[in-house]
Amino acid sequence: MQITIRKAQLGDLRDIYNLVYELAVFEKEPNAMTTSVAEYEQAFSEKLIDSFVAELDGKIIGIALYYMTFSTWKGKCLYLEDFYVQPTFRKDGVGQCLFDAFLAEAKALGAAQTKWQVLDWNEIGLNFYKKNNATIEKNWWNGKIVLDQDNQ
Amino acid sequence: MQITIRKAQLGDLRDIYNLVYELAVFEKEPNAMTTSVAEYEQAFSEKLIDSFVAELDGKIIGIALYYMTFSTWKGKCLYLEDFYVQPTFRKDGVGQCLFDAFLAEAKALGAAQTKWQVLDWNEIGLNFYKKNNATIEKNWWNGKIVLDQDNQ
Repeated sequence: MQITIRKAQLGDLRDIYNLVYELAVFEKEPNAMTTSVAEYEQAFSEKLIDSFVAELDGKIIGIALYYMTFSTWKGKCLYLEDFYVQPTFRKDGVGQCLFDAFLAEAKALGAAQTKWQVLDWNEIGLNFYKKNNATIEKNWWNGKIVLDQDNQ
Repeated sequence: MQITIRKAQLGDLRDIYNLVYELAVFEKEPNAMTTSVAEYEQAFSEKLIDSFVAELDGKIIGIALYYMTFSTWKGKCLYLEDFYVQPTFRKDGVGQCLFDAFLAEAKALGAAQTKWQVLDWNEIGLNFYKKNNATIEKNWWNGKIVLDQDNQ
């Protein structure tokens, strides 16, 4: 089995979108995903997002999608927005290869740290991050407001 | 008392930095802040961050510092990294004016939503966000890895 880890290209965004949808199903919120492939392509073209993909026989089976943010305490911070490997391929270290590529990219881009979020019940994810010596913070809550762009 | 809400300029970054430090003290982690004013200025010049400031008699007394991110579920998302008003001026609606400016900017930039984080014990902050009809999510934990840039 030959798995390739490489940077995403514009033509990969549809496959990436489909994997994000699989992840949303795993996170029990498929209906919460209201984006389109076109929005992904635009964000990618504007360099707002970037991604690594894991490819097997020409098929994308895993993604690590990220963007640069800034921590006023620590400086540049590469944020891992979505990280997913299809269940069938999880035993083969694909996730670790993607995560390593993400960490190397963060260093190359001059980031002082990396961040992401994980659902409190996601034991598979939590074990993976602990194995990677990540710090898990439980004392911050997320605030959000959905904007109604039609009523501007 | 005449308070002005305006977009930050490069020359404001030192004052913004000082207010972030005040906020870090309030959040009981002043030592966690290892950034420099120069890093703020660079991030601002690179358009990685932007900020609104509240000014009274030529002195900056509040900030709302933000950057654009991308939610793979919802699309463009303006992220409020730091939001602070000096305690003396909190009764005068300065925070609401800053927050309103932030929401208007998010709409103007085509964001589908805004996000931020709040410490679970920060009742003043939580009450403010609830008053603004924000959703508060408690089921996501933060993962992070600090990178050692010296050992690349």
